[in-house]
Amino acid sequence: MALVVRVGAARAAWWRDILQSLLPELEVRLWDDPGDKAKVDYAVVWQPPPGGLKTFPNLKVIVSMGAGIDHVLRDPELPGHLPIIRTVGPDLTQRMREYVILHVLRFHRRLPEIEASSAKKEWNQIITPTAPNRSIAVLGLGNMGADCARHLAAIGFEVHGWSRRPKEVQGVTCHHGPAGLRDLLKRAEILVCLLPLTPETTGILNKDLFAQLPQGACVINVGRGQHLVEEDLIPALDSGQLGGATLDVLHVEPAAEDHPFWTHPKILLTPHIASLIDPEAGAKIIAANLKRFMAGEPVPDMVDVAQGY
Amino acid sequence: MALVVRVGAARAAWWRDILQSLLPELEVRLWDDPGDKAKVDYAVVWQPPPGGLKTFPNLKVIVSMGAGIDHVLRDPELPGHLPIIRTVGPDLTQRMREYVILHVLRFHRRLPEIEASSAKKEWNQIITPTAPNRSIAVLGLGNMGADCARHLAAIGFEVHGWSRRPKEVQGVTCHHGPAGLRDLLKRAEILVCLLPLTPETTGILNKDLFAQLPQGACVINVGRGQHLVEEDLIPALDSGQLGGATLDVLHVEPAAEDHPFWTHPKILLTPHIASLIDPEAGAKIIAANLKRFMAGEPVPDMVDVAQGY
Repeated sequence: MALVVRVGAARAAWWRDILQSLLPELEVRLWDDPGDKAKVDYAVVWQPPPGGLKTFPNLKVIVSMGAGIDHVLRDPELPGHLPIIRTVGPDLTQRMREYVILHVLRFHRRLPEIEASSAKKEWNQIITPTAPNRSIAVLGLGNMGADCARHLAAIGFEVHGWSRRPKEVQGVTCHHGPAGLRDLLKRAEILVCLLPLTPETTGILNKDLFAQLPQGACVINVGRGQHLVEEDLIPALDSGQLGGATLDVLHVEPAAEDHPFWTHPKILLTPHIASLIDPEAGAKIIAANLKRFMAGEPVPDMVDVAQGY
Repeated sequence: MALVVRVGAARAAWWRDILQSLLPELEVRLWDDPGDKAKVDYAVVWQPPPGGLKTFPNLKVIVSMGAGIDHVLRDPELPGHLPIIRTVGPDLTQRMREYVILHVLRFHRRLPEIEASSAKKEWNQIITPTAPNRSIAVLGLGNMGADCARHLAAIGFEVHGWSRRPKEVQGVTCHHGPAGLRDLLKRAEILVCLLPLTPETTGILNKDLFAQLPQGACVINVGRGQHLVEEDLIPALDSGQLGGATLDVLHVEPAAEDHPFWTHPKILLTPHIASLIDPEAGAKIIAANLKRFMAGEPVPDMVDVAQGY
């Protein structure tokens, strides 16, 4: 029995070795050196190339190396009968929490302006409102969204959350559905996108949404690149409708060298690191899920493929 | 009866007007235009010039516009019999909490490096440890220090606190005294100074302390400028013993234009804004304390002048 692992070249061997040590009963192979594909039962993947997974005729399960499965589902030739296990866990939630709090506070306390003043040797004392007087919106109240919203509220922010269906999160005012989204947007001074990528949420961060925010609002996208209509962002920043944007995800990653987001003064591009999966921690989660699957036990991280997340 | 207010020129009139509206029974005057000094009973001050307070012969109480009173006590001619009320409250604690969390996370998630890579259009995926694997030290467990330590622990960090006398703070490993300081320093990857300024804590951030930290540790000073031996900082950064420093306070504020801290690549200087007192919120606290004092009621924010904080 074999497992094939597909991940960016820089960390592929690291992943293979860790997975091999945790799953000695399997032969762990790299995607680019798969050996006899008929002997591969398990695929652990990040952004598998379209048409790739169907070349393994005896796959039993696909493991997404992340919380989202959109990067698997985008394959038009994906063998549709296969179950998919996503990878979630305290380590990933912790990382996302840190990133979101950092970047919300960076906008809230106007750090880019403070740093710009400091670079000019200007002692520029900016008084900002306190967090209880600042309204934050979190789109998406899954594991990570709910965790971020709860922690932002604990720091003192007025936090509003939004999800497709009604949810309850401690300390957070929860909205749902289209009417709930309108209510939330009109007061969102800092908007955090943590939605799953589905047909309904693709392109949700667009000029119509930006126009509903208070003038000068800031946007943080830690969902997927496809949540953002990229051509709508710079006009909204240049008009002053948006005050800033932090983007951890893009339509095409890594960003091309001539991508205008690299150099726009109101955009900070980070290289998909908000909740980057660490092989040491991630492989333990993946191995534990696969062991459950192989033993025929329920796997709580199995995805509802029809729902898309 | 009159009150005199002394604060930076940029906000002096704003403060006077707000205090006047809250304390209509007093005549609120500016320090530079005090009228008959014999009629001044109350002084609300930030960094009063040495020898200044003794020129008001009938003062009954001094109010410090901040949590610390070192800026009052440094006056060698201070009328020593006068009680001092400090200014603390949820607004100031909230601001300090936001600043400390922001700057701890900025170092923890290596934001300066991420931003430098982004400026060079480099997609540089840095994996950092998670907060539970990062040890933070908070020096000083007064109102603000304890609040910051507790909130850093709630985000997930391993937090160690230090104070002169034993304290207990939820989620925080508390150390005290000289032996406790040594224990704490050897594991402090990010050190936050929130101590009161006293003869014992003056110059505590010096080369001997830096040498006890793990290599590459970062320092955040939100106490007072005099906590830091300024000439010890750049050598420690340049040798790599320290990885970075964020300073909100300096010996002389605003920093002189030729101060080397402005331009050092591993130092971020912020203009004493961590917990900048907002006249709207601060004046309410000060007025409430003065009303208690005038009514002969106990004032919980009265300072133990002998202790120095």
